[in-house]
Amino acid sequence: MDAQVYKSDLIFTKNDKEFTSMEQAYLVVENGKVLGVFDRLPGKYESIPLKAYESGFLIPGFVDLHLHAPQYENLGIGLDEELLTWLNKYAFPEEARFSDAGYAEEVYKEVVRRLWENGTTRSVIFGTAHKGSTEILLRLMKKSGLGAYVGKVNMDRNSSQELTEDTERSLEDTEAILDAYRNERLVKPIITPRFVPSCSPRLMEGLGRLAEKYDAPVQSHLSENTDEVEWVKELHPDCESYAHVYERYGLLRQNRTIMAHCVYCTGSEKELMREKGVFAAHCPISNTDLTSGIAPVKDFIAGGVNLGLGSDISGGHTLWMPEVLVHAIQVSKLYYLYKDKDCGRLTLPEAFYLATKGGGSFFGKVGSFEEDYSFDALLIDDCAIIGQGKRSLEERLQKFIYTGEKGCIIKRFVEGNELGYTER
Amino acid sequence: MDAQVYKSDLIFTKNDKEFTSMEQAYLVVENGKVLGVFDRLPGKYESIPLKAYESGFLIPGFVDLHLHAPQYENLGIGLDEELLTWLNKYAFPEEARFSDAGYAEEVYKEVVRRLWENGTTRSVIFGTAHKGSTEILLRLMKKSGLGAYVGKVNMDRNSSQELTEDTERSLEDTEAILDAYRNERLVKPIITPRFVPSCSPRLMEGLGRLAEKYDAPVQSHLSENTDEVEWVKELHPDCESYAHVYERYGLLRQNRTIMAHCVYCTGSEKELMREKGVFAAHCPISNTDLTSGIAPVKDFIAGGVNLGLGSDISGGHTLWMPEVLVHAIQVSKLYYLYKDKDCGRLTLPEAFYLATKGGGSFFGKVGSFEEDYSFDALLIDDCAIIGQGKRSLEERLQKFIYTGEKGCIIKRFVEGNELGYTER
Repeated sequence: MDAQVYKSDLIFTKNDKEFTSMEQAYLVVENGKVLGVFDRLPGKYESIPLKAYESGFLIPGFVDLHLHAPQYENLGIGLDEELLTWLNKYAFPEEARFSDAGYAEEVYKEVVRRLWENGTTRSVIFGTAHKGSTEILLRLMKKSGLGAYVGKVNMDRNSSQELTEDTERSLEDTEAILDAYRNERLVKPIITPRFVPSCSPRLMEGLGRLAEKYDAPVQSHLSENTDEVEWVKELHPDCESYAHVYERYGLLRQNRTIMAHCVYCTGSEKELMREKGVFAAHCPISNTDLTSGIAPVKDFIAGGVNLGLGSDISGGHTLWMPEVLVHAIQVSKLYYLYKDKDCGRLTLPEAFYLATKGGGSFFGKVGSFEEDYSFDALLIDDCAIIGQGKRSLEERLQKFIYTGEKGCIIKRFVEGNELGYTER
Repeated sequence: MDAQVYKSDLIFTKNDKEFTSMEQAYLVVENGKVLGVFDRLPGKYESIPLKAYESGFLIPGFVDLHLHAPQYENLGIGLDEELLTWLNKYAFPEEARFSDAGYAEEVYKEVVRRLWENGTTRSVIFGTAHKGSTEILLRLMKKSGLGAYVGKVNMDRNSSQELTEDTERSLEDTEAILDAYRNERLVKPIITPRFVPSCSPRLMEGLGRLAEKYDAPVQSHLSENTDEVEWVKELHPDCESYAHVYERYGLLRQNRTIMAHCVYCTGSEKELMREKGVFAAHCPISNTDLTSGIAPVKDFIAGGVNLGLGSDISGGHTLWMPEVLVHAIQVSKLYYLYKDKDCGRLTLPEAFYLATKGGGSFFGKVGSFEEDYSFDALLIDDCAIIGQGKRSLEERLQKFIYTGEKGCIIKRFVEGNELGYTER
């Protein structure tokens, strides 16, 4: 038995209503999974080695449901544009550089190091259309010990010349990766049609077949920007909605699909997402930075749609999930003021839930300290931000989320392993 | 002659339309003021000592037009509330603690250190109603070498019992500070009625008289939140608008007054502000965090109203002005999407201008590297954020603004003096 007891202040969310906080409690881990959390350590666990963290507190690791690793170098650049212009002017030219394996290795090393540094213990990642560089990213992620789904992007129409794939080749490359990594556990491939406008029906159909054959998850983009939504309508006038295009080609797999953004989903689209257990990846910073809009997250929550948060770099300008979480709360306040007074605003426990257990559910039992959950955790040293007085654990978490920095994270665990990743 | 030449990459905004950027240029400083910037150093300056910064770049220091120093300990706390509730629940109880000089000294030392660390070379600060703690803040700011206006807050109605002042005493304390610091140059007092609801007509009238007598600047709050605006209407039904209440009591002094927020200003209010040269302190993070709304900054710019940015801690959750600047851009995009498609969005040069020369104008010639401007500057080391490829100076600035951290600031200058402030 590989077991460990941690004694520390603990704070996490079992649901989106409230925090569970326990001061100087005991968290018992066995084989990478949480056996339980206790105010007093039960006698049967007394023989297990104990580590005590007397200052600081443990939280579940952050889950980033949507990011484009190859856009890392563009962080902070070009944010005066909107989606379709921005893709052509910034995203596609940068992604084209990933035909060069050496460049991919350099950039992806930095991305992986930054994910580690930012406490993003699980992520769902878009690579580029290149098989080679995507395999580099899979290898580097695996080496880091972080958990991830990594997708080779598929795009065979309406893309830049350099990135437009031959349809058959795109499917072959995708299948080769699915096959090679079929037995991986912590870092796995995910089928990644870029978005409807850049995928031909034949490509989407083929990807739907592969998803079925390999029982693979799927990620893509949905209803991010009004021009994009119009474009999809023109391309697929026979489909009821943008989401129904994915559905037609077998790309909304039950509880295994992530759709990023979902800013402009219609009622029937939301209903389809709920039925299929699609995860909406809410990317508030990106949606603001690219003037896309504000996704109605409170509607998604009320409607029972699976939901998590995404940084969407480099449409979003940071990997730091606390900032994504704060921005989710912020835009929900503005949506309330300027769009819908009835929908309510995101609370801190709700947003924290989305950034941990909400998105974590895509990985299984991830994002909480409840029994049987993977022990993915961050030890937060808040002594530099806590200030003068005595604060409750919930206020200390508030301060960390709103004012903390990467340097506050002093330990990172995934499946019970402490990750000391330092490679540059 | 106390003169110095700096050779470095330089980027700044002479106006809000575009950056002026110069690679490896020469900036000549004499007696704390900029004599000029040159691509080639003129012969007459060749005998002046030269410092060369071969990596990194120089920008003007940041100007924060509105912050509450005594709320520093509350950073990140209580942001699920709106203004009037939040004041009573969080701001007032914390400010009441500043009757204790020892506590004030501790917290204010930290605030001053953080302003220095964040590269905020000039700021306009609310203290508390306490004369003693305000003098402590004035003293600590002076010692730091940073530039500031610091105000003892006045409040004699509708406040918590602990903070409600006797009207005469409030005026006497204010006058004592105005008198004691009348000859200061870099850190000066500013008359600070909290906001109309907490100042009786008699108090405002007395403050107007003091402003005239000491030719002193004034700061307050204006039209931040709809409930607050309604309240002012009830308190002063005879005044045309909220701003007109201040005007009635002589508190809108020509080009010497800052009004924070200005989210809900009416047309005639804006016109009055323009006439009086009132500076609007746009505090986007605070206005979002407290669900106040989005100030129509593009309208203010188009209407010729003086404008700068404020962190408004702890209504806002950070002192880091690049984040304030980014949020100003972000909310302008959402205002465009959800409120007014005709008003346009804030560009990066516009927002940078507001954070430097826009707010700096309240201090005189501050916030630019043009001739005769105070040499207030930050040396930015961007090697950790610039990444792989060669970037233009403007893109390097974009990256610093969107993704930089305090650690990127490696030197800070105010009036030509490098500040090595380190006291904790």
